[in-house]
Amino acid sequence: MEEKKARDMIKAKRLEKKVTIAQLAKTVGKNSMFVAAALQGNHRLTEEEAKKVGHALGLDKETTEALSKFPVRTDFPNATDPFKYRLLEVIGVYGDALREMANEMFGDGIMSAIDFTIDMERVTGSQGEARCKITLNGKWLEYKTF
Amino acid sequence: MEEKKARDMIKAKRLEKKVTIAQLAKTVGKNSMFVAAALQGNHRLTEEEAKKVGHALGLDKETTEALSKFPVRTDFPNATDPFKYRLLEVIGVYGDALREMANEMFGDGIMSAIDFTIDMERVTGSQGEARCKITLNGKWLEYKTF
Amino acid sequence: MEEKKARDMIKAKRLEKKVTIAQLAKTVGKNSMFVAAALQGNHRLTEEEAKKVGHALGLDKETTEALSKFPVRTDFPNATDPFKYRLLEVIGVYGDALREMANEMFGDGIMSAIDFTIDMERVTGSQGEARCKITLNGKWLEYKTF
Amino acid sequence: MEEKKARDMIKAKRLEKKVTIAQLAKTVGKNSMFVAAALQGNHRLTEEEAKKVGHALGLDKETTEALSKFPVRTDFPNATDPFKYRLLEVIGVYGDALREMANEMFGDGIMSAIDFTIDMERVTGSQGEARCKITLNGKWLEYKTF
Amino acid sequence: MEEKKARDMIKAKRLEKKVTIAQLAKTVGKNSMFVAAALQGNHRLTEEEAKKVGHALGLDKETTEALSKFPVRTDFPNATDPFKYRLLEVIGVYGDALREMANEMFGDGIMSAIDFTIDMERVTGSQGEARCKITLNGKWLEYKTF
Amino acid sequence: MEEKKARDMIKAKRLEKKVTIAQLAKTVGKNSMFVAAALQGNHRLTEEEAKKVGHALGLDKETTEALSKFPVRTDFPNATDPFKYRLLEVIGVYGDALREMANEMFGDGIMSAIDFTIDMERVTGSQGEARCKITLNGKWLEYKTF
Amino acid sequence: MEEKKARDMIKAKRLEKKVTIAQLAKTVGKNSMFVAAALQGNHRLTEEEAKKVGHALGLDKETTEALSKFPVRTDFPNATDPFKYRLLEVIGVYGDALREMANEMFGDGIMSAIDFTIDMERVTGSQGEARCKITLNGKWLEYKTF
Amino acid sequence: MEEKKARDMIKAKRLEKKVTIAQLAKTVGKNSMFVAAALQGNHRLTEEEAKKVGHALGLDKETTEALSKFPVRTDFPNATDPFKYRLLEVIGVYGDALREMANEMFGDGIMSAIDFTIDMERVTGSQGEARCKITLNGKWLEYKTF
Amino acid sequence: MEEKKARDMIKAKRLEKKVTIAQLAKTVGKNSMFVAAALQGNHRLTEEEAKKVGHALGLDKETTEALSKFPVRTDFPNATDPFKYRLLEVIGVYGDALREMANEMFGDGIMSAIDFTIDMERVTGSQGEARCKITLNGKWLEYKTF
Amino acid sequence: MEEKKARDMIKAKRLEKKVTIAQLAKTVGKNSMFVAAALQGNHRLTEEEAKKVGHALGLDKETTEALSKFPVRTDFPNATDPFKYRLLEVIGVYGDALREMANEMFGDGIMSAIDFTIDMERVTGSQGEARCKITLNGKWLEYKTF
Repeated sequence: MEEKKARDMIKAKRLEKKVTIAQLAKTVGKNSMFVAAALQGNHRLTEEEAKKVGHALGLDKETTEALSKFPVRTDFPNATDPFKYRLLEVIGVYGDALREMANEMFGDGIMSAIDFTIDMERVTGSQGEARCKITLNGKWLEYKTF
Repeated sequence: MEEKKARDMIKAKRLEKKVTIAQLAKTVGKNSMFVAAALQGNHRLTEEEAKKVGHALGLDKETTEALSKFPVRTDFPNATDPFKYRLLEVIGVYGDALREMANEMFGDGIMSAIDFTIDMERVTGSQGEARCKITLNGKWLEYKTF
Repeated sequence: MEEKKARDMIKAKRLEKKVTIAQLAKTVGKNSMFVAAALQGNHRLTEEEAKKVGHALGLDKETTEALSKFPVRTDFPNATDPFKYRLLEVIGVYGDALREMANEMFGDGIMSAIDFTIDMERVTGSQGEARCKITLNGKWLEYKTF
Repeated sequence: MEEKKARDMIKAKRLEKKVTIAQLAKTVGKNSMFVAAALQGNHRLTEEEAKKVGHALGLDKETTEALSKFPVRTDFPNATDPFKYRLLEVIGVYGDALREMANEMFGDGIMSAIDFTIDMERVTGSQGEARCKITLNGKWLEYKTF
Repeated sequence: MEEKKARDMIKAKRLEKKVTIAQLAKTVGKNSMFVAAALQGNHRLTEEEAKKVGHALGLDKETTEALSKFPVRTDFPNATDPFKYRLLEVIGVYGDALREMANEMFGDGIMSAIDFTIDMERVTGSQGEARCKITLNGKWLEYKTF
Repeated sequence: MEEKKARDMIKAKRLEKKVTIAQLAKTVGKNSMFVAAALQGNHRLTEEEAKKVGHALGLDKETTEALSKFPVRTDFPNATDPFKYRLLEVIGVYGDALREMANEMFGDGIMSAIDFTIDMERVTGSQGEARCKITLNGKWLEYKTF
Repeated sequence: MEEKKARDMIKAKRLEKKVTIAQLAKTVGKNSMFVAAALQGNHRLTEEEAKKVGHALGLDKETTEALSKFPVRTDFPNATDPFKYRLLEVIGVYGDALREMANEMFGDGIMSAIDFTIDMERVTGSQGEARCKITLNGKWLEYKTF
Repeated sequence: MEEKKARDMIKAKRLEKKVTIAQLAKTVGKNSMFVAAALQGNHRLTEEEAKKVGHALGLDKETTEALSKFPVRTDFPNATDPFKYRLLEVIGVYGDALREMANEMFGDGIMSAIDFTIDMERVTGSQGEARCKITLNGKWLEYKTF
Repeated sequence: MEEKKARDMIKAKRLEKKVTIAQLAKTVGKNSMFVAAALQGNHRLTEEEAKKVGHALGLDKETTEALSKFPVRTDFPNATDPFKYRLLEVIGVYGDALREMANEMFGDGIMSAIDFTIDMERVTGSQGEARCKITLNGKWLEYKTF
Repeated sequence: MEEKKARDMIKAKRLEKKVTIAQLAKTVGKNSMFVAAALQGNHRLTEEEAKKVGHALGLDKETTEALSKFPVRTDFPNATDPFKYRLLEVIGVYGDALREMANEMFGDGIMSAIDFTIDMERVTGSQGEARCKITLNGKWLEYKTF
């Protein structure tokens, strides 16, 4: 809850000052997706990075410090909004296919969601239409036998 | 159920003949992720493509035809296996960040899961480790006002 | 389950004989959406209409009779307030029929809920009663193959 | 929550001033269903439109601005296949708006799902695109008092 | 929530003044079950009736007005208290039997829950024991064919 | 499952012989609602009554005996069909009101669902419309203090 | 919520004054399990008994009166058949009271369900009625500190 | 499933031979509640006891052996705190056994949870260990036929 | 809620004073895992230990006392954060194997979660990597026969 | 299902031949917990190891091969049996404490469930009682920043 208040405060300040996430990402020298996740309370910044964000948005000390605490990531998807739903649907339609392909390409294991990066780009399709490209990149972890 | 039987039969034949999904994808001239989804019953092949797969795996007529029927995609994720779970966790940790970034980059809308492609690659990380790279690419759809 | 077997048999026969739902609707003189729902086991035909369908598809006596039994409609989503519930019930009763019709009319895809408009009107029915008319209008999106 | 407060404030003001949604729709030059959804927090107005609504209802600056923020639409029923899901999403996004409009147009009651017809048509949009039009038509049932 | 506060306030006032629901029902000239539902926020009174109740209980203006707003009925039964559970159990034990009987007596349709009244009486059983008799009375609605 | 098979067999026989539940009820000298519940496997007949039903429908010995075994009543309502849903909705809309009224009329307790009868009648409303009247009658049970 | 506040207040006072539930039970002349349930808001005392408790704990008037209101018992587990449901309901109504009593009588731990016996007897009540007596007997296990 | 088949077979044989659970309990020299739980697959007999039951009921070798396998007890209600969970587990392990015994001892009905008392005592076990004894005592309610 | 407030306060103080859980564990002379659980409200300290912690962190009297109350442990895992999820996954992948092994090594019973200790260590793997070792140690409880 | 059949067959054969899991583990030269998981279908053996197990148990070719297929691990814990429940309870009581300690000892990350081993031992407690000791050992994975 505390955490939620910090998150809401940061967003309010950011909108008020018309600072984009992309600008904050440049300020701290990190990927904008990582910074967006940190502003949502799902990643943490170093204390130094937190101070830079706090300075850029004019945050008070407590809110600034919240940005570098250990996050507790708990808001996982059941019912959800239309944007996140399409991502769930992708797992529904392609999840088994991805595992089959991964078994074929890598063996028995999983793609790590921890040693992991994600990125979003705006690309143009063959009809000139705007397309959203999301890249997931995670270390392959093989099941250990013992 | 019917559909499940066809799916299980196809997988059994494929393992028996030691034909990979990648080889089948080359046979029909499509992306291996799409073909993997079709073999799972989540996409459909054209009748011609179905026949090529049927021929390659020695499927009977009925099973071959099942590959080009309209799929009913219903196996969506609640509880799940460890592989698909990491994908769900990614949506849990980055879902709100992705929407925020998308709002900033595109406006109010969603990435289509229908006018959409997906691909998986094996890449090597900076420590020489194997990494799994999954690329999602969907048309951007803006909310229509009226 | 019995009911499901009849439903599957009817669909198999219909696909085998390449008879569309629209043609069956013309045969019995009813709206194709209603007939699609009846073939799904969510509405019932009169005995006469059932016989016409049975004749057109070459069904056995038992399957033909199944078409005019009292349907038990059970595939429903969760509870909500009474107003929104009726809308959910409509999806429960007609959802599969709508997908079948859409597959027949458009191919494999979905009606967009984003490039989409909706409207409500008050109209007067044939008995002079007030009726509520809701119109949904969404762009058709075809599954992309790749 | 913030959003909910804005929504409640707007509704309170609207009832106090006895301004209907239909009148507000005329004021901003949009469909009343769209405006009802926007007042529910499930769509957004342009800044200009928001100002017109704010002026008509005597809203403070913050509440007025809330009307043109990116909405987060979250009140959804459970998962299903992608086709039927879009219909559920429509109820999620427009369900409260439909009830509000129905209360305004008909009084306290529901649209019957029994004395009810439904139809689907293929129509062509203004860009020449194929569109799917679904029409729901149900008898209005008023709550009986006793 | 607002609504809940009004509801709690009304109950508190009613208990404080030791006014029964039955007395209030007499005051407004309606069935006590309907009035009990209205005090719970599941039905609405006319403005006149609301004023009579407000006067009888010494309610403030805002609480009085809450009694004639459009109710949003959302507290539907999942887990529940022992009293309501017995009613759910009755539907569990007799629900299919009721539908079978209704199909036999009326045809294919439902008993309306909107054009509907309900009443509770205290009667004496054959052993002299107190019994609770609840009568449901709803319009029969036949499925429309089209 | 066994039980379900017996139930389905009995219904099939009953429809084949065009015997109504009401006729069977007369044959065994019990209320038709009770008999309908017994045919659904939610109540049991005496051995004698079971034989009469078995004789009337031409049931085999095993199926006949199933009618007088101890029933295990387990099919309780979560999601449900439109007919039973209206009954659940009634509990949703009136459940708290019923408890309030019962507290006022009887004290602290519940209406028994065991020492309980239920009946359905077809009545005519003030507009000449068909109405469905369901009467619940259960012993009042007061919470015991100790 | 109100009820919860009263409950919390009573517990706080009781701990502050170091009065056990067993002492309060003696004060009002009832079984300590019943009194524990009443203090949890799952049973009610008579007005006289409530006053005695209020006096013993130094409660204010409102909190004292809360002890003799009709309880709404709502903390229940899921549905099952009617026989097992009553057992679940017993845990719903008395579960917290049992833990409170066990904490008072044994300390911090649980009754084992493994080193455990159970028995059922038919006994005759004071009105000559048949009663079902079930006895649970499990080893007490204390939480180990380390 | 296997286990279920053994369970169903045992019950069928027992009913056919009209042997009560109480008689079987006497045969093996154990409490009838324990034996009822074992026949439900929630406890196991020793091999010797299993043979005695197999002999008494005329079971085949495989079914007899099933009675002394390690049981997997899985039919449980939802999660809660550790103290109350043990009570739920007791219903999971012994619930069906209790209903069977109650049917045998009382007929078709339930133990009331309303005309009901409960008590907890601290007793000393045969090893000198502290034990928690909980006694449930409810009026027996027979299903009314009508 | 109260409890949650105490918990949050303790954590805030601990972070502010930069006192680790390990240091607090040393202060009270207990295992750090036990102390961590106590600070989470899932175990209780003795009054003396609570005072030492209160002194070390500068807690007020009420918060200090909260540390030695009987805990009500209710936050059990359904959906959860990524850290706890891996533990659930371990039970998913190895749970049945653990029971099979336990049956083979101990007989029919369970590992107690009450007469139980748990510990976490940092160890180094064969590749020099950091590894997390968690040791569970619970008394074996054999099912009692009776 | 297929997989389940193989699993059941293997267990039946193993019990029939009275071969323990520990003996099979020795035969293939792996940890008995790993082998137990493989026999449950949650891990896979190499083809060579599978043959050794097949030989030891007298399995047919198809069942033997099932032991070295890619496992799909899906049986994750919701409701569960008493043995696995205690493990879930441990996560409920100690899960947050484990994360807090891990954050303190390792930083922001998780214990891997893939690069992971598990073991169970029988140890003797200080009172001479049998205790079950389970050791989890997983690689520590730090959240990657980017």
